[in-house]
Amino acid sequence: MANKYVYMFSEGNRDMKNILGGKGANLAEMTNLGMPIPQGFTISTEECMKYYEDGEKLSDEVIKEIEDSLKQLEELTGKEFGSLNNPLLVSVRSGARASMPGMMDTILNLGLNDESVVSFGNLTGNEWFAYDSYRRFIQMFADVAKGVKKSYFERVLDEFKEKEGVKFDKDLTIDNLKEIVNTFKGIYKDELGEEFPQNPKDQLFAAIVAVFKSWNNERAIVYRKMNEIPDDWGTAVNVQMMVFGNMGDTSGTGVAFTRNPATGEKGMFGEYLINAQGEDVVAGIRTPKAITVLEEDMPEVYKEFIAITERLENHYKDMQDMEFTIENGKLYFLQTRNGKRTAAAALKIAVDMVDEKLITKEEALMRVEPKQLDQLLHPAFDQNALKEGVVVAKGLPASPGAGAGKVYFTAEDAKAARAKGERVILARLETSPEDIEGMIAAEAVLTVRGGMTSHAAVVARGMGRCCVSGCGDIHMNEEAKTFEVSGKTFKEGDYVSVDGSTGTVYEGDIATTPAEISGDFATFMAWADEVKRLKVRTNADTPTDAKKALEFGADGIGLCRTEHMFFNETRIFSVREMILSESDEERAKALEKLIEYQREDFIKLYEVMDGHVVTIRLLDPPLHEFLPREEDEIVALAKDMGKTVEHVKEEIESLKEFNPMMGHRGCRLSVTFPDITRMQVRGILQAAAHVERELGHDITSEIMVPLVGNIKELKYVKEIIIDEAEKVIKEEGIDIKYEVGTMIEVPRAAITADEIATEAEFFSFGTNDLTQMSLGFSRDDVSKFLGDYYDNKILEADPFARIDEDGVGKLIKMAVELGRKTNPNLPIGICGEQGGEEKSVDFCHRVGLDYVSCSPYRVPIARLAAAQAAIRNR
Amino acid sequence: MANKYVYMFSEGNRDMKNILGGKGANLAEMTNLGMPIPQGFTISTEECMKYYEDGEKLSDEVIKEIEDSLKQLEELTGKEFGSLNNPLLVSVRSGARASMPGMMDTILNLGLNDESVVSFGNLTGNEWFAYDSYRRFIQMFADVAKGVKKSYFERVLDEFKEKEGVKFDKDLTIDNLKEIVNTFKGIYKDELGEEFPQNPKDQLFAAIVAVFKSWNNERAIVYRKMNEIPDDWGTAVNVQMMVFGNMGDTSGTGVAFTRNPATGEKGMFGEYLINAQGEDVVAGIRTPKAITVLEEDMPEVYKEFIAITERLENHYKDMQDMEFTIENGKLYFLQTRNGKRTAAAALKIAVDMVDEKLITKEEALMRVEPKQLDQLLHPAFDQNALKEGVVVAKGLPASPGAGAGKVYFTAEDAKAARAKGERVILARLETSPEDIEGMIAAEAVLTVRGGMTSHAAVVARGMGRCCVSGCGDIHMNEEAKTFEVSGKTFKEGDYVSVDGSTGTVYEGDIATTPAEISGDFATFMAWADEVKRLKVRTNADTPTDAKKALEFGADGIGLCRTEHMFFNETRIFSVREMILSESDEERAKALEKLIEYQREDFIKLYEVMDGHVVTIRLLDPPLHEFLPREEDEIVALAKDMGKTVEHVKEEIESLKEFNPMMGHRGCRLSVTFPDITRMQVRGILQAAAHVERELGHDITSEIMVPLVGNIKELKYVKEIIIDEAEKVIKEEGIDIKYEVGTMIEVPRAAITADEIATEAEFFSFGTNDLTQMSLGFSRDDVSKFLGDYYDNKILEADPFARIDEDGVGKLIKMAVELGRKTNPNLPIGICGEQGGEEKSVDFCHRVGLDYVSCSPYRVPIARLAAAQAAIRNR
Repeated sequence: MANKYVYMFSEGNRDMKNILGGKGANLAEMTNLGMPIPQGFTISTEECMKYYEDGEKLSDEVIKEIEDSLKQLEELTGKEFGSLNNPLLVSVRSGARASMPGMMDTILNLGLNDESVVSFGNLTGNEWFAYDSYRRFIQMFADVAKGVKKSYFERVLDEFKEKEGVKFDKDLTIDNLKEIVNTFKGIYKDELGEEFPQNPKDQLFAAIVAVFKSWNNERAIVYRKMNEIPDDWGTAVNVQMMVFGNMGDTSGTGVAFTRNPATGEKGMFGEYLINAQGEDVVAGIRTPKAITVLEEDMPEVYKEFIAITERLENHYKDMQDMEFTIENGKLYFLQTRNGKRTAAAALKIAVDMVDEKLITKEEALMRVEPKQLDQLLHPAFDQNALKEGVVVAKGLPASPGAGAGKVYFTAEDAKAARAKGERVILARLETSPEDIEGMIAAEAVLTVRGGMTSHAAVVARGMGRCCVSGCGDIHMNEEAKTFEVSGKTFKEGDYVSVDGSTGTVYEGDIATTPAEISGDFATFMAWADEVKRLKVRTNADTPTDAKKALEFGADGIGLCRTEHMFFNETRIFSVREMILSESDEERAKALEKLIEYQREDFIKLYEVMDGHVVTIRLLDPPLHEFLPREEDEIVALAKDMGKTVEHVKEEIESLKEFNPMMGHRGCRLSVTFPDITRMQVRGILQAAAHVERELGHDITSEIMVPLVGNIKELKYVKEIIIDEAEKVIKEEGIDIKYEVGTMIEVPRAAITADEIATEAEFFSFGTNDLTQMSLGFSRDDVSKFLGDYYDNKILEADPFARIDEDGVGKLIKMAVELGRKTNPNLPIGICGEQGGEEKSVDFCHRVGLDYVSCSPYRVPIARLAAAQAAIRNR
Repeated sequence: MANKYVYMFSEGNRDMKNILGGKGANLAEMTNLGMPIPQGFTISTEECMKYYEDGEKLSDEVIKEIEDSLKQLEELTGKEFGSLNNPLLVSVRSGARASMPGMMDTILNLGLNDESVVSFGNLTGNEWFAYDSYRRFIQMFADVAKGVKKSYFERVLDEFKEKEGVKFDKDLTIDNLKEIVNTFKGIYKDELGEEFPQNPKDQLFAAIVAVFKSWNNERAIVYRKMNEIPDDWGTAVNVQMMVFGNMGDTSGTGVAFTRNPATGEKGMFGEYLINAQGEDVVAGIRTPKAITVLEEDMPEVYKEFIAITERLENHYKDMQDMEFTIENGKLYFLQTRNGKRTAAAALKIAVDMVDEKLITKEEALMRVEPKQLDQLLHPAFDQNALKEGVVVAKGLPASPGAGAGKVYFTAEDAKAARAKGERVILARLETSPEDIEGMIAAEAVLTVRGGMTSHAAVVARGMGRCCVSGCGDIHMNEEAKTFEVSGKTFKEGDYVSVDGSTGTVYEGDIATTPAEISGDFATFMAWADEVKRLKVRTNADTPTDAKKALEFGADGIGLCRTEHMFFNETRIFSVREMILSESDEERAKALEKLIEYQREDFIKLYEVMDGHVVTIRLLDPPLHEFLPREEDEIVALAKDMGKTVEHVKEEIESLKEFNPMMGHRGCRLSVTFPDITRMQVRGILQAAAHVERELGHDITSEIMVPLVGNIKELKYVKEIIIDEAEKVIKEEGIDIKYEVGTMIEVPRAAITADEIATEAEFFSFGTNDLTQMSLGFSRDDVSKFLGDYYDNKILEADPFARIDEDGVGKLIKMAVELGRKTNPNLPIGICGEQGGEEKSVDFCHRVGLDYVSCSPYRVPIARLAAAQAAIRNR
């Protein structure tokens, strides 16, 4: 036999998830452990892919294998499929490698037909139960396997109950049920043009095919995309003997967790229903009992149950999520799996299990998904309140957290409302640096334009502020201070709620719950630090951000963007004066004001950083970003500078660029305006000298030159820096240490990194720009086509959120190798947005970087990701 | 002796140019050939660099070497430096590796002082001559070595002549001269605060230092930058015994060429003056005689002269440019070098010399600078008329040639004026596709903004139209239809003259001479084709351009930009309709109109191309480039489409991009608007089918997908292309061959070329975009900082004009290697602007490309460059 596509439960084990799917592998494992499992067999994921390759057909060999397995199952159970005397009934369930909840519904009671329902009634002594099972089966089969709308059947049921004047299904008579079965079969025939299949094998193969087809239904595809599950994994099909929890008061069914999935607390957690089938628990018509009550209801069963769950947790060494059924006092387990949990629970369980010596610290570290930590650091919507929420729009989850408040349309209005004690949402077409104070005042920021790395997104993440960006559904009318979306108009002061973790915008004021960090967090993160090789720095421009990052365990600042220091209301004026200067004297005057600010900024930053390393990037954006756009601002500026409005406008016009991202910015500014660079260097070193003197910190200023593409650029700018630095050192009379390094963000820099390393004292990958230029993706414009790229599977992840390993990653690898060839000890880091993303951190570890740098709120994520990378790549 | 810095002429040879400079090496060679050369020695270029390294100081060893050489020279000549009886007088001249005319003036008669002038008079029996030599020396030394203004001395001379009532220097008396010498020495002292040096060695070392210093004077630096001569080559200094052409009527001096440097005609060409020194020939006060007259004046000397010039030409196997002096009937050669020549002359000389069996065809091919050919293909200004021209501005030499005419400020006005028979210059802030017809009507195009690869530049080069772009000096007032520059205002209808080969703009109407292509051109280019390995294709979008390119020897079309087909007045309307369509029906309607145009375009193109390969690039630019900007056009469009003006404006606004170069363009358009791609493919293949049927051409349509960065993009678009192509093939009922290839212009494509080659049937490097993205240089914005980059030596050449070998070149190399690893037979070309530039062509040859593609007028240049590359890299 060339290939095997069908496995009895006893032929598999937990390691065969890729072939058997999660559910099948665990059923096999439990079978091997001798646990009470209704037996069955699994049709492999490989057969699913083969089914598609064969043109959506089950091959003859596979049909044969299934029939053989069925025979074995009959022997195991002593029942017979399609038999009138002792019919074997089965359930058919999908089960993929990764859990994909809701991908396909289950079909229960398969094998019943017009004849066997009678003998089943006789056999169980419960005709009502038999017909109830049959009508459920017809409905499930028609719905799940054949796509007939569930509501058609439910309507019939409702009509019967109304006619009979009863409230619950269980109060229908056996005659009702028999009539219902006939009506259901009628619906089936009307809808599908064929009789409801009476041959159990026809039923079975139809159900199997339905599971395979469900792999490519809309829901499944969307779920896979969201969770990055490859399309070619396929799903397995589990065919399992039915057991019945609804055979009377010594029967029942339930779900349970070995620990509390919300808090992580140890102890059985779950609920069950006496005399019910699985779907009844979920349906919520009857209120289930707490699992502990089972001890009173059926003490023996409970004892066995507890023993098995303990054995399962010890075996899997993780919190288990289980389904079970009691049939006439006999306990069966239908499923076990590692249970989903909240971040807080994940942390507690991991730490507890290490205490219990169930797992090692390293195993514990691998148990928590880094990005889950976000939940702990940001407020979230109250889950119950959220259920009532009405979604009005979907944007990009630009900065996690939840915020609810009154919507305002300008930074000024937001600030004013905040001052009056209101909770505020700032809604803008797009934000600009002038909106900073409005963003600070807001609970959340909502923008119509811009991607995951737009101004709004970057700044919001930096300050831990919730943000949804690129919400293109919204029609914004900034002048009227309204926006329209989903047919509703929101005016200034209307409540909206914004979920930055999902990108969802709700109408109204939804309650939030604050961030909570437990003691387990510190314990757990300390373990991460023991293991990780990568340092984790932060991108921070203000003392507030820097302090937050240190609290979150940052090893220093990897990127301080000096331009953000310029945007404050009073400073930007001097910046504009500097830019529009027509003579060296004018420029010198403006620079003199700016250096005061810069020195003060760096002093405060150095003070907070308490000796931790600070990497300061010289001015990077094109100068026109600092210039006013609004008429009144232009008029004010012209007046203040003693120039005509026309002149100022002309200057603004002349500074405009076609493609500013590749224009006059970065080190190109240092080449054309060396005075600005000198001012910055002076401010940095004077501040370092001050703090060294006052606080005795040992500071090495890392000065970083942006946008270098050519060794000669770096050499030229470095000479300016050194020249000015040496002057300051002389003036200050103390030895201030400094290093001059460079961003690697222009592809040419990566390609010629061997040359650049002859001058650079450190490298820092600016993966935002490197991604933009390597892919030719303007991050502010990609939203115009990125949707189509995802839909057509050209792209699977946002390259601005996760490093594009095959492209940008190759350049990074090349640059690291070339740079280290020149200088084996060259310190190399990354300060792009991707530095806080799990898989990118893993890449950075593998490629041999020294550190990653990310926004303060992503520091814990990066620390854990770095630890996991170290463990994974050992 | 560790190093040798000074060489007697007899110690060198022609191959030592790097050390001795051109002049020194040739003087040495002629010495070795036994020709009559006033002997001397050369101080090497290496000493020049050492002089700078030593802090602008001659080292003791070098001084010693010079003194030793001086002693040897005294022995050779039997004269003594600084002697009263038989003084050795010398000339001091600079001489770099490459000819740098006018870098430093010559100092003659060095060695004279107050005493030796007397004995020199006695020795030559000509006191007048001795004092005349002395006063000349004082003036030259003061001017050249010490920077005293020449005019101070000339004024004295003029005053004396006026006082004496004479017209020429030669009519001054000996007493006058003696008085003049004293006055000159007085000026020297007044200006420099020291006596005129009487010690000949002091004079000599001062002169040598002056030559070294001249290497870094303003003129020399500018010249080097213009001619791309490295700063670290340095100059040599030649110290040579004086001979005198001004010792009476059996003396004389002249310059001569072995062939006519303007026409290339064989035969002695030059002029001389009896009883004169070199400077008199140049000064133009006396009219020199044609060299042939020398035969009558001094038959013996002439015979010797002719014999030597013939020997020189045969020895150097190139046309020689020589200086000579006759001293008392004895002929001396002072210099020989390969003569500068016009393109026409270069071509004729090269072809003639092959006929004369003096050189091989391959040597001939190496003799003509490829870019010189431009002169032959474009009109030029009449050189005499140009002397009168008043320069008003300098821009970028965007497209070669010369044009003079009345200036107009809109395409419409230009077209109208042209229709009335006027010669027209189109002046614009920048051109857009809507200006095409105005550009066609104009003799030359002049823009204020935009670089060498701006719209104006690319289109103008394509049509062979003269263009100066990026002329930032000009203050344009498009509304008033005037511009201001150099303090002058030019109104509509004023004459200007534009030199696209130099970037110069003149006022007034300067006469031009038409392009002339001789029979030699065809002969010569045929030789090039025999030798070259690279094919040369052309970038052409119209039948006119394509035809021109075929005349110039193109092997096919390497890049047909389909978007240029859309800009015609009637078509752009349909394009706009297509872009602004709100439904599939609307779009389909617009596309139906466009496909008619496309099919017609390609039919005409295929007809002209007569079976030569045509590579057609799918639509590339972002759609907003096609949309109207002017209010009236927007209103017209809205009306015609039955939409509101607001709606159209909103749509235009929503298509705007922050960085369009990295935005929604290229294959990204194919992903979001597959219908456009289908329309284009349909048009191409229907046209191919038509022309195959009608004319029997065997056509393979090469369809090129732009801006691919990811194999999945190419795969996706290729599937669309194949699907549509197969439909057309089926409909047409004949087998139309087609290939689907890709541009390699996104860095990521170069990095992942191995993957991309699995789908691409050919590669074509789009080096414009590849340069933009690899360097992060927006070509439309670089003008803001490129000047500073040149000034500070960060960049030496425009990377958009010449491939940046160290950066972009490395990516190209990588892509070629990766692509050929996947498919060893992958055809690879380049279609960026650099494809017509000499050094870039050499690079393309070395890196193993199959073809280069460039604008029609650069095809001959590329053919020759390809031939030279083949020879050079053999």
